[in-house]
Parts: sequence; structure tokens; C-alpha cells
Amino acid sequence: MVRAIEWIDDRVRILDQSRLPHEVSYIDCSHHGMVVDAIKTLKIRGAPAIGIAAAMGIALSARGLKADSFEGFMDALQPVMDEMLSSRPTAVNIRWAVERMKGLLQRNRERPVEELKGLLIEEAKAVLEEDIEVNKAIGLWGAQFIRDGDTVLTHCNAGALATGGYGTATAPILMAVEQGKEVRVIADETRPVLQGARLTAWELMQAGVPVTLITDNSAGALMRSGEIDLCIVGTDRTARNGDVANKIGTYSVAVLARENDVPFYVAAPLSSIDFTIPSGELIPIEERPPEEVTHLGGHPVAPEGVMVINRAFDVTPARYVTAIITERGAFRPRDIKRLARKGVNLTELRVKP
Amino acid sequence: MVRAIEWIDDRVRILDQSRLPHEVSYIDCSHHGMVVDAIKTLKIRGAPAIGIAAAMGIALSARGLKADSFEGFMDALQPVMDEMLSSRPTAVNIRWAVERMKGLLQRNRERPVEELKGLLIEEAKAVLEEDIEVNKAIGLWGAQFIRDGDTVLTHCNAGALATGGYGTATAPILMAVEQGKEVRVIADETRPVLQGARLTAWELMQAGVPVTLITDNSAGALMRSGEIDLCIVGTDRTARNGDVANKIGTYSVAVLARENDVPFYVAAPLSSIDFTIPSGELIPIEERPPEEVTHLGGHPVAPEGVMVINRAFDVTPARYVTAIITERGAFRPRDIKRLARKGVNLTELRVKP
Repeated sequence: MVRAIEWIDDRVRILDQSRLPHEVSYIDCSHHGMVVDAIKTLKIRGAPAIGIAAAMGIALSARGLKADSFEGFMDALQPVMDEMLSSRPTAVNIRWAVERMKGLLQRNRERPVEELKGLLIEEAKAVLEEDIEVNKAIGLWGAQFIRDGDTVLTHCNAGALATGGYGTATAPILMAVEQGKEVRVIADETRPVLQGARLTAWELMQAGVPVTLITDNSAGALMRSGEIDLCIVGTDRTARNGDVANKIGTYSVAVLARENDVPFYVAAPLSSIDFTIPSGELIPIEERPPEEVTHLGGHPVAPEGVMVINRAFDVTPARYVTAIITERGAFRPRDIKRLARKGVNLTELRVKP
Repeated sequence: MVRAIEWIDDRVRILDQSRLPHEVSYIDCSHHGMVVDAIKTLKIRGAPAIGIAAAMGIALSARGLKADSFEGFMDALQPVMDEMLSSRPTAVNIRWAVERMKGLLQRNRERPVEELKGLLIEEAKAVLEEDIEVNKAIGLWGAQFIRDGDTVLTHCNAGALATGGYGTATAPILMAVEQGKEVRVIADETRPVLQGARLTAWELMQAGVPVTLITDNSAGALMRSGEIDLCIVGTDRTARNGDVANKIGTYSVAVLARENDVPFYVAAPLSSIDFTIPSGELIPIEERPPEEVTHLGGHPVAPEGVMVINRAFDVTPARYVTAIITERGAFRPRDIKRLARKGVNLTELRVKP
């Protein structure tokens, strides 16, 4: 399986996704500035993956810091954390990673500085390992819904490349394959940025999973002709009521799936469920530059000056979602809000295949 | 309004659509071989437009032919007609144009050859004019469904560029604008070949109609947010039961429209309705080269060797179609079959806005 990021020999090795699928090259970051640059220039992307990168970047910078006291150490580390935060200002996972590293240090403030440096490295590695564990759990819960011989449609890239490993939407597929099931994947190319063509198709080919690329326009016709058995997509943010914000076009896939009685699953780590937001209507939708639509590889494909609407995400209402697959099980969207409470009987709540 | 093809000063002037939207250049064909080449290399495309080109190409070649008898004239013209037929072997409109020109000659076989040459030119011009008249009629019937201030979604290019003028799907829009209504258009870019971005957006900008380009992925979200009032698309072939074959992705637009209570209209000249085919299931779907999906402007955007499904068309079942707009009125899809009968009361059958 492809690894987007690893800690190897006191360096942070990042797979340069901006060159995929044409060139597989790695950046061995010896300085946190290289990690910041990789995040900024989208060499590494995907919410979990950039969270891991931020944690590793902080650990990397700490190694070289000279400080006599906890306060001096924190003062020296603060600009690094600020740099991480500003690399992708809206990334929730970077903020989360920075807070986690800070919390670790505060809890261990009595220890010598040299020991703290080691703790940061261990914590950064743990962030990666925990992400992989979460995805494997999503994979196991999700694999139940994939039968031997099934064809799975996915949209955009919620794959290993977006995470520490296994991906979210791809984890059930990889787990089903590990269980010996024969699984084929249909990957939407996912305009405008073509993450499906460039990343999902590539990483599944690397993993030896048979994958067929289609234009986003083709998904509906393939569902109607019975060529797709189920859909699994990722999510950027899921609201308390089970409404799912994800890459533009996800809503269309969901509607077409329901129209054709094709189950539609969302792979969502609990960290991506925002229990503070009551409904998907309240999730702000980012408008991206028109050039993503009007230009391809730097070349114009549309008339100069044409107006463009280019929203990054759409919201799929909960009623189109068969189940939301988390690391604690698969649940009906309307039951997601109950996961925030204590003492819930998860076994009863789980959706069975 | 843009003209894809015209007869000017005994030459056939073809707008080179392969260079759009970046360059507006015309090819003045003085020899029928130039017309054949323009058809083959997609400098002119769209079923009605290439039918017109074939008729004009035949008239053009006839001008230079030397023959003493009707038989000699026909013998000399036959290779030209064969060349036209082989330029796009599956194009129904080219066959239709060739038969029409042949029929004209047969009916006038007693006339001198020089006179026949003139008749061919008049007939070719008539083919163009009749196409424009058909589209204007579609436009008038269709404009009824467009209210002042409406936003219309269209898919692919069924515009002036695909026809002699006005287009089919665009005719109601242009007519509504001529009637003084304010109309905005949302154009799906239409992967893989991007006819929406390259052609529809361009020709509507030329006509002064406000047009906004979107990725095909965005149409659903815009319907859900109430930003689209109606959809109008063209058709390559409509079956007797009202099932509509059109550019891949049309089915998705239709499903999303119904889900969001957005009316979905198909602009279909009677010549595109195949009364011999009982259902859309029987319409063969062309599979196109994978490179259309894996490459953009000659550059790869997907991993080498990835499998691809690239169907040119899909079939939208009649139940998703609000009305089919023809040159004789707009009809419910289930009533289309009655248009083939004589003595039908069209006024009763027509769908009112």
C-alpha cells in the first residue's frame, strides 16, 4: 500500500502528490520548513495526512532546538507551530495536531528538554499509527457491505494518499480484498482537479485492485445498467443530523444511487463528524478559483472571460445515505448524533449488512 | 448569431470548430475535398450541420463537372457522394442529404446538366434554410416554457454550431431573449470532450446571452440550491416511446432535475425521432477511445494503462422528460409516437406551459 508520509531515519518522507501519477518521487524533509512547503504546495493533501505532517514537522524542528528550560523550549517552538497553522489556514487537522503536541508538552513540562524532544517524535509517530488504526477499523466495518465480486464506485480521493494509510473510502475495499473477496472499483475522475484520475486510480493500481476510470458524467448510466453494486465516498465534514459535505459531485452520485437502488456509504472517521453543527445547510461551502474549470494543465479550454461557478463541496442530505461507516461501526445517518452521548449501546445501533 | 456553415460566393464557408474557443477562423472551401476533410477532422460537427455540409459539398463539386448527359453527370457525381458518406460513416444526416440530392436529380433528369448544377446549389441552400426554420420553430415552441428571469441549464452543445443556425437546445433560449425575456444559461462543461466549455459557452457569449460555465459535477448542487429553473438538452436519437439518447451525462441531469422538481426538456427536430425504434434500450451506444478521458490537450492526466469506460451517449428514460420540443410543438414523451400517424390533432396533444 502507498504511504503518503512516513518518519524514516529522523526525516519526514513525503510522497510528492503534485507529480502523480506521472512521477513517483519522495521529498526527504530534514527541516520543518520543507514540510510546511509541502503542505502549502499540495505535495501532501487530505485532512488526516496534513495533520500527520504538521505533527511530524513540529517533532522534526524540535530536534535541533537549543533551550535550557521548558519555557525557552516552548518559546522556540511557538513560531514553528504558527508556521504550521498558517500553511493551510482552514485545515482543522493541523490545528488539532498542533494542540495535541502542545498538550503533550504541557503534561510533561517537568521533564528535561532533551526528553521532550523524544516524546514529540513518539507522539508524531503515534498520530500516524492511530490514523492507520482508525482507517483499518473503518475498513473492517465497511468490508461487511462488500460482497465477493462486487464493483464499488468512489468519487474523488479519500484513499491512502489522503491519510496515513488505507484511506477512508478505500479502506473497506482494501480490507475486502485482504479478506479474499474479488472487488473491482470504478473511479470518478472528479473534475475539476481530477483527484480520482490522478490519485485514486493510481493508488488502487499500486495496491493491485482492478480500477476503471470514468468521467463523472458516466456514473449514472453505469448505475442504471447495473454495473455498480455500491458506492463508498469520503467526507470533509459530516453534520450531527447525518448530512455529508464532500467533494462537489458527491450529491449527484448519491441521488443517482438512490434512484437506481444502489447503496451509498460514507466513510467518516469520528474526527470528521462535527457534532456542533445541527445540519449540512450550515456548513460553509468554499468557492474555488475559476481557473480550475477554465484551464487544464495551464491551457485554456473555455472562452476567455466566461463566468464560472466552482464550489469545492456539496452537501448530501442524510436521507440519501445508506450508512455512515466510522471506526466504531456503521450507523444510519440519523443515529450519528447518538455517538456523541455516553453509554450508548453501539451493538444495537450498528447497521448490519 | 454564429454560423457554422454558409454558402458564400460559390464557396462553402465553414467555421473551424476545432480551434474554438481560442481562435475564430473560417475555411473557404472551393473544392468538395475540403468539405470532406472538415467533416472528418471535426472542424464541423453536429448532426444537422454535417448534413448541410454534405449537401453543399455535393453542389460544390457538381459545378466543376463536365458531362454531356444525365448519366454521365451522375457517374461523375457518384464518387463524390461516396466520399461524403464515408467521411462520418454513422452519420444519418449525411446519408439523408445524399439521398435528397440524388432524388432531386432523378426528378429533374430531363433537364440540361448546366441547369442541374444550379438546382443542386439551390437545394443545398434550402437544406440550410429549412434547418434554420425547424430550429426557429423549436425555439418558438420552447420559449413558452422560459419565464422572464429564468436560468436554463444545458448539457453538451446542441447549439447554433451544431446546426445551420439557432441550434436545437439553444433555440428556445435565443427566442426567449428575442422576445425580450432576461435569460441566463448555466453550461455543463461536458466531459470528456468539453463541448459545453469550448462551444456552448462560446457561442452564447457571441450571442450576448449571459452564460456561466460549471463542471458537470456541479449541476446537481445548483439544482438543489434552486439556482436552475429548467433544463433544455438536445438529442442524438429519440425512440418511439420517448426515451432519449444524448451525450453521456444527460441521464444524470434528468434524474437530478426530477429529484429537485426542475422541468427537463429535450429539443428534438422530428428528423431525430426514430419511429422505428420502440425503446431507448435498443439504441446502440458507441464506445469512444480511452484517450479522451486519460488525456487532455494531448497531456496525460491519469496513470498509464488504467482501464477506462468511455461511452459517448446514455439513454434517458421517457419518464424523466417533461416534454419533447419539436418544430410542430412540445409533446409529452408518451405522445411522441402519435406524431408518426396521420390526422392527429396536434393542438390537443401539445403540452401547454
